[in-house]
Amino acid sequence: MPDDLRSPGPLDAFRRILGPNGILTAESDLEPYLADWRGLYRGRAMALLRPASTEEVSACVRLCAEQGITIIPQGGNTSMVGGATPEAKPNQVILSLARMNRVREIDTADMTMTVEAGLILQKAQQVAADHGTLFPLSLGAEGSAMIGGLLSTNAGGNTTVRYGNARELMLGLEVVLPDGGVINGLRRLRKDNTGYALRHLFVGAEGTLGIITAAVLRLFPAAKETATALCAVPSEDAALALFRRFRAADEGAVRAFEYMSGIGMGLVMDNIEGATLPVAPGFEHFVLVDLSASREGAGLRNLLEQVLEAAMEAGEVLDAALAESEAQRAAIWRLREEHPEAQKRAGASVKNDVSVPVSSVPELIRRSSAELVKLIPGSRPVPFGHMGDGNIHMNLEQPPEMPAADFLARAHDIMDCVNAIVRELGGSFSAEHGVGRLKTDMMEAWRGGAELAAMQAIKAALDPKGIMNPGKVLP
Amino acid sequence: MPDDLRSPGPLDAFRRILGPNGILTAESDLEPYLADWRGLYRGRAMALLRPASTEEVSACVRLCAEQGITIIPQGGNTSMVGGATPEAKPNQVILSLARMNRVREIDTADMTMTVEAGLILQKAQQVAADHGTLFPLSLGAEGSAMIGGLLSTNAGGNTTVRYGNARELMLGLEVVLPDGGVINGLRRLRKDNTGYALRHLFVGAEGTLGIITAAVLRLFPAAKETATALCAVPSEDAALALFRRFRAADEGAVRAFEYMSGIGMGLVMDNIEGATLPVAPGFEHFVLVDLSASREGAGLRNLLEQVLEAAMEAGEVLDAALAESEAQRAAIWRLREEHPEAQKRAGASVKNDVSVPVSSVPELIRRSSAELVKLIPGSRPVPFGHMGDGNIHMNLEQPPEMPAADFLARAHDIMDCVNAIVRELGGSFSAEHGVGRLKTDMMEAWRGGAELAAMQAIKAALDPKGIMNPGKVLP
Repeated sequence: MPDDLRSPGPLDAFRRILGPNGILTAESDLEPYLADWRGLYRGRAMALLRPASTEEVSACVRLCAEQGITIIPQGGNTSMVGGATPEAKPNQVILSLARMNRVREIDTADMTMTVEAGLILQKAQQVAADHGTLFPLSLGAEGSAMIGGLLSTNAGGNTTVRYGNARELMLGLEVVLPDGGVINGLRRLRKDNTGYALRHLFVGAEGTLGIITAAVLRLFPAAKETATALCAVPSEDAALALFRRFRAADEGAVRAFEYMSGIGMGLVMDNIEGATLPVAPGFEHFVLVDLSASREGAGLRNLLEQVLEAAMEAGEVLDAALAESEAQRAAIWRLREEHPEAQKRAGASVKNDVSVPVSSVPELIRRSSAELVKLIPGSRPVPFGHMGDGNIHMNLEQPPEMPAADFLARAHDIMDCVNAIVRELGGSFSAEHGVGRLKTDMMEAWRGGAELAAMQAIKAALDPKGIMNPGKVLP
Repeated sequence: MPDDLRSPGPLDAFRRILGPNGILTAESDLEPYLADWRGLYRGRAMALLRPASTEEVSACVRLCAEQGITIIPQGGNTSMVGGATPEAKPNQVILSLARMNRVREIDTADMTMTVEAGLILQKAQQVAADHGTLFPLSLGAEGSAMIGGLLSTNAGGNTTVRYGNARELMLGLEVVLPDGGVINGLRRLRKDNTGYALRHLFVGAEGTLGIITAAVLRLFPAAKETATALCAVPSEDAALALFRRFRAADEGAVRAFEYMSGIGMGLVMDNIEGATLPVAPGFEHFVLVDLSASREGAGLRNLLEQVLEAAMEAGEVLDAALAESEAQRAAIWRLREEHPEAQKRAGASVKNDVSVPVSSVPELIRRSSAELVKLIPGSRPVPFGHMGDGNIHMNLEQPPEMPAADFLARAHDIMDCVNAIVRELGGSFSAEHGVGRLKTDMMEAWRGGAELAAMQAIKAALDPKGIMNPGKVLP
């Protein structure tokens, strides 16, 4: 490491703040934190700071502000868009929230839980369950992703259709500002109209306006009943029609409604050990419907059967497998959750995390699939995801015979192709993964003008020195 | 009106933008807009601007920015805290959104409705109902309050416990910024993580950062069943225990859970024609529970009876009246909704719109009532409101024999008394009414330091000339 990254001044000062366990500087120790897990980006850093308290975060940030050191906040480092990766520049520190992982308080009368930013999502779910409640946020990276990062990126996942995004699951925040000041907004209130809703600004700001150090999360009653089915449907439109049937039958019961294509399901069958299709083979469209209720005797199994029967009579469902046990339920969910891994094993793929109004999901899938195959003959569209909230991962798998590098060289064409359709449909180029580093160059075209100018004015107002997670979100 | 308020320059320019129907300048025409409906404040204005489109709003704001004219956005003018009243200063215009009252689009597949800021809430509810859906926001002023004002103040109301505040019912906004620029954020997306969540900044900013001109609102399936009861309970703690029983039995069914005191109910009986108590007389604490479900055969009546029976056995409910018809349901709700009117007829009163964590509501009511009676002997505490979301209107009615002016002279002592307890309990001095002009002087004590500084930095960044609704929200 060059000397300019090791000037003893700031490192000693960080050491005084954090103690010997609170800072890593050896290259080998820093290694796992310098690149994103997808391998898209790699940067450098003079140190990894590991504060154990809000006071330590504040003192570190204050020092950075004084010395003009930029800060990359990092949680589980599971960003899909390079949101927590340092740049290839000097004078940077990574600030990991991993040691701030306590549950400060849980209250089942208020149905709230106050937790620190470094708490891993799976652990948060477990603590809630241990108290007979539910913390409903659920997504692929839940074994690594931390609450601070999930809030900073306003994570979505499988249960948005019922419970909303991370934003809706948050009542209050504690935030360290770019000057080291601390906002103590850990209020456990459902109603509080006392000035600007700063907490909603930090949620989704991807660490560019400050560092979330703790949050008050909402809890819900645990499910007393669930019912899950995998359905083969004749078309994208039929999938949407089925969603509308379930929503009309019992809106509050639809916890997840996921779409998968025949191609995607084929990749899972071919590449994932032990994956078995519980319906007849050969269908082109699938839906996973997951119902839950917190009331006794909700009769979800009956509801599921009735809705599916009516949909079959209407020709909207061709075949269906209802989970008869928790094991079967897990097996059905596995078919959905292994989509990314199956894609990875099948070769190179380009990901498009896009959203459109729910009514436009069939058109999005149909048009994008057709255009993508025209763009790259032999490529395989693998649309899957959260139909119930309009968020489809409109991914494309390489043609089997094409060299991966040749395919990946077309990544921007592929993204442009999908995004042109998304834009026509009034959608978004980043539904749940955020902007990070990967998509900053799209902000001007999609959010330019008054909207982007307002964002930049806010960034300049709160972080005038530009030390918080530079190069992310804003172009 | 003095000449300086009638300089022909800007008025002619406004006239050119708005046409003859778009501007009022005669004193008699302006009269209804210069004071708040509670009669707390009164200001002046050179004109009432009545734009009919977003372009007209933008042109007016641009002109104001150029000429240094301050703008008071006004919807239904139903603020409880003087949030839409001009100051007693020259060079001001009131900008009414009343003519922008169209429903631009309604989509029952997406379950969204795009409406303009001047649409009255009751009308929005009606349009939703005409399409077989529900727009759940519901509050006393719904016959006058407009969508733009409801969002600008993040209105709460009766259904927050189930559907959240106005904020949670909004997916996208169109906003005219203080320089006249327009943010077109009317996206109908459940997931969209593309930069800072500006829409959440404008919601609750009370018109100090820009003017909301249109919004995408969320719709829900209409209720297929309801069940409503008025219960007499032995204590505040019993009221909370009953809430927890209902939430445990069927969380999604509790649409409203309202607390009322024996004193408040007595004021309604004494002052409101036709009000009758459907339970035995003499109780000190009441709860209105309102259940609804969008599924067929939800069995809410059974649920209501079962929960109340168990609560009676546990001594948590002393008497209960279940609505047997829509008329009875309306009569029960009327007892709750006439509380403000009954208070008004009974004499002078001081209002405290406060919130605490739900678990602390009993302590809030008990301690505040005791302290208030100590502070002003003979005064009558009238706590009522949204127990299910922690928001209690901790109001105080004057002693019958005391001159109203003497009582009102103690208003600040009364508010301080309640707020000291609220603060100890981790609550908020303004739950759903906002800060407006009435409570700006509390911001420093409650949100001072890093939080208020960040708010002020954002205000300065977005409205550097300070022309948007000056004197509101920030001290």
